[in-house]
This record gives sequence, structure tokens and C-alpha cells, in this order.
Amino acid sequence: MKGLMQDWPLLASTILDHANTNHGEREIVTRTTEGPIHRYTYADLHSRSRQVAKALEKQGIVLGDRVGTMAWNTHRHLEAWYGIMGLGAVYHTINPRLFPEQLVYIINHAEDRIVFVDLTFVPILEGIQDQIGCVETFVIMTDAEHMPQTSLKNAVAYEDLVNGVDDDFAWKVFDENTAAGLCYTSGTTGNPKGVLYSHRSNVLHGMAAGSKDAFSVGSMDAIMPVVPMFHANAWAIAFVAPMMGSKLVMPGMQMDGASIHSLLEDEQVTFTAAVPTVWLMLLNHMEEGNLKLSTLKRVAIGGSACPQVMIEKFEKNYGVEVMHAWGMTEMSPIGTLGALKAGMENLSQDEKIKQKLKQGRAIYSVEMKITDDNDEELPNDGVAFGHLKVRGPAVASGYFKGEGGNILDQEGWFDTGDVSTIDSLGFMQITDRAKDVIKSGGEWISSIDLENVAVGHPEVAEAAVIGLPHPKWDERPLLIIVRKDGSNVTKDEILAYMDGKIAKWWMPDDVAFIEEIPHTATGKIQKMALREQFKNHRLPTAAV
Amino acid sequence: MKGLMQDWPLLASTILDHANTNHGEREIVTRTTEGPIHRYTYADLHSRSRQVAKALEKQGIVLGDRVGTMAWNTHRHLEAWYGIMGLGAVYHTINPRLFPEQLVYIINHAEDRIVFVDLTFVPILEGIQDQIGCVETFVIMTDAEHMPQTSLKNAVAYEDLVNGVDDDFAWKVFDENTAAGLCYTSGTTGNPKGVLYSHRSNVLHGMAAGSKDAFSVGSMDAIMPVVPMFHANAWAIAFVAPMMGSKLVMPGMQMDGASIHSLLEDEQVTFTAAVPTVWLMLLNHMEEGNLKLSTLKRVAIGGSACPQVMIEKFEKNYGVEVMHAWGMTEMSPIGTLGALKAGMENLSQDEKIKQKLKQGRAIYSVEMKITDDNDEELPNDGVAFGHLKVRGPAVASGYFKGEGGNILDQEGWFDTGDVSTIDSLGFMQITDRAKDVIKSGGEWISSIDLENVAVGHPEVAEAAVIGLPHPKWDERPLLIIVRKDGSNVTKDEILAYMDGKIAKWWMPDDVAFIEEIPHTATGKIQKMALREQFKNHRLPTAAV
Repeated sequence: MKGLMQDWPLLASTILDHANTNHGEREIVTRTTEGPIHRYTYADLHSRSRQVAKALEKQGIVLGDRVGTMAWNTHRHLEAWYGIMGLGAVYHTINPRLFPEQLVYIINHAEDRIVFVDLTFVPILEGIQDQIGCVETFVIMTDAEHMPQTSLKNAVAYEDLVNGVDDDFAWKVFDENTAAGLCYTSGTTGNPKGVLYSHRSNVLHGMAAGSKDAFSVGSMDAIMPVVPMFHANAWAIAFVAPMMGSKLVMPGMQMDGASIHSLLEDEQVTFTAAVPTVWLMLLNHMEEGNLKLSTLKRVAIGGSACPQVMIEKFEKNYGVEVMHAWGMTEMSPIGTLGALKAGMENLSQDEKIKQKLKQGRAIYSVEMKITDDNDEELPNDGVAFGHLKVRGPAVASGYFKGEGGNILDQEGWFDTGDVSTIDSLGFMQITDRAKDVIKSGGEWISSIDLENVAVGHPEVAEAAVIGLPHPKWDERPLLIIVRKDGSNVTKDEILAYMDGKIAKWWMPDDVAFIEEIPHTATGKIQKMALREQFKNHRLPTAAV
Repeated sequence: MKGLMQDWPLLASTILDHANTNHGEREIVTRTTEGPIHRYTYADLHSRSRQVAKALEKQGIVLGDRVGTMAWNTHRHLEAWYGIMGLGAVYHTINPRLFPEQLVYIINHAEDRIVFVDLTFVPILEGIQDQIGCVETFVIMTDAEHMPQTSLKNAVAYEDLVNGVDDDFAWKVFDENTAAGLCYTSGTTGNPKGVLYSHRSNVLHGMAAGSKDAFSVGSMDAIMPVVPMFHANAWAIAFVAPMMGSKLVMPGMQMDGASIHSLLEDEQVTFTAAVPTVWLMLLNHMEEGNLKLSTLKRVAIGGSACPQVMIEKFEKNYGVEVMHAWGMTEMSPIGTLGALKAGMENLSQDEKIKQKLKQGRAIYSVEMKITDDNDEELPNDGVAFGHLKVRGPAVASGYFKGEGGNILDQEGWFDTGDVSTIDSLGFMQITDRAKDVIKSGGEWISSIDLENVAVGHPEVAEAAVIGLPHPKWDERPLLIIVRKDGSNVTKDEILAYMDGKIAKWWMPDDVAFIEEIPHTATGKIQKMALREQFKNHRLPTAAV
């Protein structure tokens, strides 16, 4: 028997309608690519997004078509998103940091018919446009005055396109499971794979992400998403902010410490979110200038693990609460956030910071469990660590066009590729990537834990741990060290330092010293490169 | 094209699973019907609810069956709800304050197969059990020790039923639109009509109601729903609290000021919700004993308009923020909540209180508009008032078994029967019930506005306004006054007092004095009775 409740599909347009009716006066402030600060309101966004939808419809875009956006966080990017979704088309956020061959691949794979592109990225697309014939029209996100000379096909200024029509457009209505957005993950192997968000997943995820133990934002808040819209939906903020009526502050292309700091202060931002790299630049800038943060209450930090010193600086020096966050493109992306729980309010600041080093608790609608190699569930005791698996209405069920095949197990769980603990209070902590865990005699050793201990040595600049083959134990850890300038620290000194800080059987079988550890574009250690580099390294314990 | 997100139906069981995994240690505290305070955790609730589901399945209850509950807010009532829903059956909350003939009607109409009943209400059901033959089993919500002598058919003690099985029960999985709950509205005319909630509507409504500008609750909060679970889902709190990990404090049957105050203090409640009557009792109790509230931050007040003096006392005397709330059984029930918006933080306390007299802003997923008699939308300017209409995924599309016919217009709007304004910031204020508005010469006069002005006169104890027929203006207002003891205030003095406080053409055409104004069980003025009483009253202005 069905309930007798209204059929009210969870469409992105309902979020913008809500903002228009209830928060029409609330501001959206953008540092434009052209330079000046632009201000308008949710009522304006509502109107302009309908113009975008109408203009796209005029261009022949229909339900299900993909429209690319290669753009910073700006009001125009928001308009494009809501206009595209309001027509029933699919925004495809293109990460400009991808290699040209990856850009060619994903634009063709997505079959983008139109691409909205910021001034900054026009040269990138010009360089590959011979290989992306699917794109019929390039919309340059500027006005006629700033329009560049460009060879891009059918290039049109965004403002000309939008102002060529009025806002008399009724949002299309369709099934809430209709595709709304597409974002490719740049895996370390193989081609990027597309995650295809639906209206339902975006709306539900926005509702969950805005809640009090997550972003905790309402109409009094001013939110600045520094995390780009092309990076996993700007962590849902483009949906959360209009849903909750929060002021939005869009930083555009300038992510240096000075630019971010001035927006935080000038626009009285209360909540912001980005990866650690951005906050490192901000903290450095503030320390150099002896600056303060006068309105910021909370900062969400994710993308990679947040260093303890960063949590300490925000909380102790600036009075800003840090929310460690974890998620994945495949999860829309928020999985966990590190809001403290009842009882923890009485912890000392240092104890709180220790708790905050964990990646946090699942928001409602995200299910998590950890399993061993045999898919047996492990206890949530904060000690056992295993494969982290997730389920939920905003978790991918597969990749676009079936790439990668079936990605769920029989019970619908998605394997994140992370290895973690979960404690009895629900706090999850990433221990390692599954492919980096060292499997020694059927037991697991966390490479990250070993690295964290090793970098505690005063003469160690950076540390990485990989597993090497071992005749008896299958794998044993090799510790790779970059010494600090002028140091001559030895293997024995390092191992002596680690003794007592880790389980005896976790002790690395060997230590290698190198000049530099290779990193990815986002600052993560390239373990695959290290494994290649040390593939002929023979562990002293491996002698038969 | 569909998105590629997981099929994860929004079922009530997902809420309890979330609480169990992430907030298993969090407390649920109940003042039991038997007397003592009972304490356990969400992990216990999770376990016991599965026992209820398993026990009901053993009793032959299947998907879609209705199971009645006639019970106070207790941990057992929660277990019954989640057990019933987890099996795919439908909880039917029975309001014990209904007249016996209404109880007979709704239990038969719902075809309840089992009824869970608190000790308090056993005599009521005994009195009507000959007329409710559909009920096969009565479960008395107590243990063997407290089991009363009863003639109720197949009466079994709740604890015996639950402890007769273990908790090895896997929640049933089904379409999220499956019926979950049933609640009858006690309309002023005709038979009660059943609102049939779905799992989807309950889950979505819980997500929206918990957000920062609504209840604003998280895992640090302790929530006490004084509003009964049989009164429109306890305003969603039974869903919000486990979803957010808030501690739950269940007041049971004792709603007097002393009992409520001691729970608020002893259990460190931060958020509570109920109708004005309850808060009047609490405020009187606190004033008499010169008591304080040491942890309560916010109180939601709805069901009927919250008097200004109540807002003032909570905010000024006790430092508790008042959230005026409005909703309907047909809306699951929350429609609006009066959270202030950006900019209002700088208002004086009196200005804030004035703003809080409005019923508040729509939560996300509730659409509102006001229309004139021709269904033309009126402006959201805070001045125009019209029929308040709503849409949303937790708004009824019809009543159980089709009673009352089609209740939505062609665009899916449900007419609330209220007349209201909506201002440009989204704040809605109820002006009147549509049936009580006085239609004078094609224009509307709010009976409530006139009453509010009239009761400002120091010698007026209570005032009511009804429309009487008028040959020229169709209707004109009659003001009906109950004088304060010893007063002899006259018609002319009353009208002189009102002069200048209302539009000239709103001035009542006559004033009548009576000893007592008739009220409903919930304290509302019975205008229908007044219209009957004054049906032969002739307005002096009506002489041709």
C-alpha cells in the first residue's frame, strides 16, 4: 500500500525556487575572472538561470544532453549549472588540471555538445579543439567587452547568449532519478571514469550535508566554497547554500592567501571549505601579516588528510573550528565530517584536536562498514582496520557508459579503496589506501601509520612506506626517507626512534634514503612510482 | 537518461540503523506510565524495535496492515513505531482525546488489526471494544507485573510480547512510497479523515525539520517532544532525533509544569516543542517557584498562535529562544518555523519578538503561495492576505480510502484553509481561517486581527468576531465580548478604543456582550457555535 503524499520530485530547480521565494534578497558575491567583485542576489540567480535554460533550449539542447563547464567558482558557473539542470540536461564539470589527452578523452566520452569556458582556460581548449569535434559551441564566460580573439568554434560571449533571451522559462519537470551532473575521477590507472549524479542524489546530499553536525549552515551564514565546483560538486555547497538561504561568496580564480583572506573578512564569511593546500597558503599569509579572522566560525578540510598542525593553528590561533571531512567523487562527495559528539565538549583543546584528526562520522544517508579480505565485517572498535565500504542514495552505482563494469557487491556496497578504522562512536579514520597496505603474514600493516611515526624524527623531512616481496611473510615494509638538509641520520637511528612507538612486527625491514619523494599534482605521494623505483630493492630479511 | 546513483530507498529503518551505528551510546530517557524514569540507548531501541517487528510478524502482521497505537511519548511507543514500520506495516496513532464515537469510527476505518495501548487508555478501549471488532489483539504497554485486569480481547503485556522473541530480524525492504503511518484529522464537520504518511515523506520531512533554520539539532542536543506522537507525528521529532543523534527525553503522561520542568533540568534538554497550553503551565509553575531553565536553548511553539506574552517570557525572563511553528496533520506536519534571518540579529529584543509573532518561513521542500478567491496568486508583500496553499513531498495528496475526494487543484496545490500574508523575506503570518474571514464588499476583514485589538482593552476578558449577513456589504463584523469581572464597559467605549487601531471600514458594526465564549477541546474559539447563537442577531447597520 502506497502512502498518500504528493508526488514532488527532488529536482535541482526546487532548490533555486526555494531560495528565490524565501531568500530572494540574500547575496551572492563573486570575484570575477575579469577582476572586479560582482554582487547580486538569489532572485537574480533564479532569473538568470532561467535565461541560461531558455538560451540552451534555443540552441537545441534537450533532456539528457551533456553540457561541459570548465570554470572557476563564480555566479556565472552557478547560473550555468542551474540552467543546465533546469532544462533536464547534464552539467559536466571539466577539471582544467587534467592533462590535455585526458581532457580530450572525457569531453569525447561525455559527448559534450556545448562547453562553457572561463577566460583562463580558453587557450587549453584551443589547443585540443581539433580533437573534440563533438562540441558544437563554446560559450566564453565573459561579456562582449572582455571577449578574447579565439579560434574556438562558434565562440559566443556568455553575456550575449544569456541576454539574448528573457527569463520566461518554466523549469522542466521529470523523474528525480534523471541525470543532473557528470564528474570524471582521475584514477591513477586507466582512463578517467564518469560519475553521473542524479537530481535526487544532489538534492538528498545537499539536505544531509547542510545539517547541524555536518556544515551546520542556515540563513545567517555566509559560505565560501574555495573547493572548486569542478572538484566533486564543490562538496555540495552549490546545493546547500540556496537550500538553506546562506550568502554565497565565490572566490573565482584567485586562491592565494591574500585573496582568500580579504574575501573571508570583507564578506563576513562564517563557513568555508577546501583542501589543505589552500589553507596552508592562507595560514602562511595570515602569519606573515599578523592577520586575524573576525567572522569565520568553521572550516571544512578534506581531499587529503588534514595535518595536525593545521587543525591546531586554526583552532588555537584563530578560534576557527576545523571540521575534518572525507568523501569521494563517487559519493557526491561527502561521506564523513568530524563534528564532536555529546560529552566531548568537556575535553581539553588538545584532546579535541586529537579527536579531530579522525575523518569523522557518517552523515545520515551514508552507510559505512569495514571488512577483511574475505568480506567479513570487522568490529567498530577503533582498532580493527579494513576495507571501507559505503552505501547510500548519493553513492555511485556504476560509471558512465558502464566503464569499469559492476562496481557494487551483491549487497550493494561500494569499495572506497580506503582502509580505515571505525570507533564505537562512529568516527572513521583512514589508515591507508588498500593498495598501499602491507600484507605481512596475513595481517595488515598501515603504511601511513609508519610514515606518521617516521616523520616525527627531528631529522626526517618526509617519509614513505611501501611493501616489498618477502619469501616468508609475502610482504614486508620498506621505509623510504628524505633527510632534512645537513642530516646524516642512519637506518639504525631511525629504527631505534620508532621502537616502542609501533608494534614490533610492524618494524620496517629496511630503510632507504633518497633525495626526493615523487608527488601527484594534488600533493599525494606517488607510491606507484616508488614501487617502480624500488622494484629491485632486496630486503636484508628476505635472504633465504 | 537516469543518473547512476544507488537505489537506496528512504525507509524509516535507515534512520534507526544510522542511530545505532553512529549514536548507539546516546540516551533515550522516558518518564514511564508506571512512574519511574527509564533509560536506555539508541542501540537498545534498535534491538527492541526489531523484536517488535519480529513479534508482529509472528502475529501475522504483513506489509500494509494497520497497527494502532494509543499511547503517550515513551520508549515503548518509539519501539512500536519503528517495529511496525520496519515490517512494512502502518502505525496508526490514535488520539485518545477524540470522542468515543470518533474512536470507533477511525479504528474501524483504519481496520487496525492490533492496537498497542497505554495503561491510561485501557478503560477507553474497554468501553468501545464491542464496536471495534477488527482489532484481534490488544497489547497493553506495560510488563506482567503492572498488567491490569482487563476485558480487552487477547490482551497481552507488551514486555511479554517483545521478550517472547529475539532481535534477529532483518528490516523489510520495499518501495520508499510505501505507507508508514496514519493519522486522522478531527475536522470540525464530518468524520475524521486519515492522512497516510509514506516512508519517503517521513524521512524527507525529518531531514528538512532538523536543519539549522528549523529545529537546528545535532548530536550535542537533547530533545524533549512534549507534543504527543499521536499529534501529527510529534512534529517529526521521532524521526529527527535518531537521524541527528540527539538524546531523546520522553515525558510520558505527565505534562504538568512541575513534571516538565524537572525533566528539562534533570536531563539537560536543549530543545523542546509543544502547544501553547503546555508552556502556559510550565511558565506558571516556574513563576510560582521562582525557577530557572539552565540548559534549554530553544522551544518550538505551534498548534495554535503563540501569544506575544509567552514569547516575551521565554526570551526575556528565561533566555530561551522561541521558534513559532506552523503546520498541519496534512503536512507531516511542519510548514514554517520562525528562525530569524541575516540582518535581524541586530534588531532590538522587542523588534525580534515582533518578528517572531509571525508563523515563520517555509522549510525547504515546502512550497507556499497565497491566492485570492479566483485562485490568482497574491504578492508576497506582507500586506496582501489570501488563501494559503502548499505543495511538497510531505504534503497529503488525498485522504485514506479517498474520503473527501480530490483535495489538490490542477497544479497540485493543497488549500490549507488558512488565510495569511507572506512577506518579502518569506515570513508567513496567519491572518484567519478562511471560513472565519469576513467578506465585506468583496474585500476581506480578518476576524483574528479585530479580536487581537479588542482584547487589548483593559476591561475585555475575551473577544470573538464573526461575520453576519448585510444587505449592502454581504457580510459585516459582529464583535462579541466577555467583560472582565466587575466591568461594565460599553459598546461605544470598545469601539472608541479600537478607533485608529484598525482601518475605518474594518470597524465592527455591532458589539454583543456574553458571559462565556465556547471553546474546542484544544482551546480554540468555536466560531460555528457563535454563528449559531447569533444567527438571528440583526446588525443595526443592516436596516434598509
